[in-house]
Amino acid sequence: VDAIAVVDVLRATTMVATLLHHGASAVIAAAEEALARALAAERGALLAGEVGGLPPPGFDLGNSPASLDRAFVAGREVVLFTTNGTRALCAVAEHGRTVAAAAVNLGPCARWLARFERVLVVCAGEARGTSFALDDFAAAALLVGAVVELDPGRAAGDGARLALALPEPLDLIPAAEHASTLRHLGLGADIEAAMAVDTVALVPVVVDHGDGWARLQPTGA
Amino acid sequence: VDAIAVVDVLRATTMVATLLHHGASAVIAAAEEALARALAAERGALLAGEVGGLPPPGFDLGNSPASLDRAFVAGREVVLFTTNGTRALCAVAEHGRTVAAAAVNLGPCARWLARFERVLVVCAGEARGTSFALDDFAAAALLVGAVVELDPGRAAGDGARLALALPEPLDLIPAAEHASTLRHLGLGADIEAAMAVDTVALVPVVVDHGDGWARLQPTGA
Repeated sequence: VDAIAVVDVLRATTMVATLLHHGASAVIAAAEEALARALAAERGALLAGEVGGLPPPGFDLGNSPASLDRAFVAGREVVLFTTNGTRALCAVAEHGRTVAAAAVNLGPCARWLARFERVLVVCAGEARGTSFALDDFAAAALLVGAVVELDPGRAAGDGARLALALPEPLDLIPAAEHASTLRHLGLGADIEAAMAVDTVALVPVVVDHGDGWARLQPTGA
Repeated sequence: VDAIAVVDVLRATTMVATLLHHGASAVIAAAEEALARALAAERGALLAGEVGGLPPPGFDLGNSPASLDRAFVAGREVVLFTTNGTRALCAVAEHGRTVAAAAVNLGPCARWLARFERVLVVCAGEARGTSFALDDFAAAALLVGAVVELDPGRAAGDGARLALALPEPLDLIPAAEHASTLRHLGLGADIEAAMAVDTVALVPVVVDHGDGWARLQPTGA
């Protein structure tokens, strides 16, 4: 594999892209909550994320792209811990060039990925990645569609072929079980934020990683 | 879960349904080749199946529903071993009422499943179930669609919602990677056989199972 895109559209990878869009200097994705706390304290970084959809006690921010305040995050490094997405980023980072992809930065991610021959799109899913999440597959389908549009001759595996057979992937994001969970938590605005295709003109790339963490910074596309 | 349907449309569950349709008295799905050989010898049963798509030396039959001869299998018990499908059947059988579902027996399987509240559809996939297979998901999508048509109020999880979003699931069976493999092996007729929706009017139900085997017999629907 030459390049990997991790998708957790509700909400971790949307959050990573939006944090960088609002001027955060870097996002450090953490695989465990305790490590996130330690990294934030050690680096004087903001601590953001969720457990069960909501920020744990002592966190500076949740995992809500819709409620981000540019004044609060601009110029700051942010450590982000979430149940599935940041774990997926950390797990994948050691296997190759990795980006955090979402619908908000769809076009830039597709252009970045299309430069590589063998591309893997990883859906973060639910329950630490052991369970299928429709929202992530829908966003991955948008991404696969955009890459194939840029490079129509590209070979596709069975998962990508399924993605390409979907007529309206974007409509499946609010139809996902996790979207219902967010609405019940009063976080419906994050679903709309996550569906705002191509409002963020950057690609969050993993620039450094270690045991349980991956540091992302923006690149253009 | 109240009922489980295992789908390996290319070709194991299509083969199970077709064997019973041609009058086999029972099919014993085996999880390992050596066990299949031992069971067939012990019971005086026909030995059928494939490794890499083709029958291993000494097998009476391959895993090819298109080339089944009624005169050869009618009234016989058949032990079937395949790389993914029979393993999936054996793995699932201990978790509840299990049927082998395919496109050929779509309507009967859907009617049988629709009687139960909590239904799980398991796609056999590739590489011992660790890899996604588009053909199995396509057939599972047909099945989910047929169950929901019989019972429109039924709740669906994310996987089923994805299945229901596909406009033409049947078209995806010949588009799957495994379909290409079969065509390269000269087994393209099995793809057409597997796509012959509702040509088999029975439901293969697991009636007995043990360590590494599951015995299926037909029931109506």
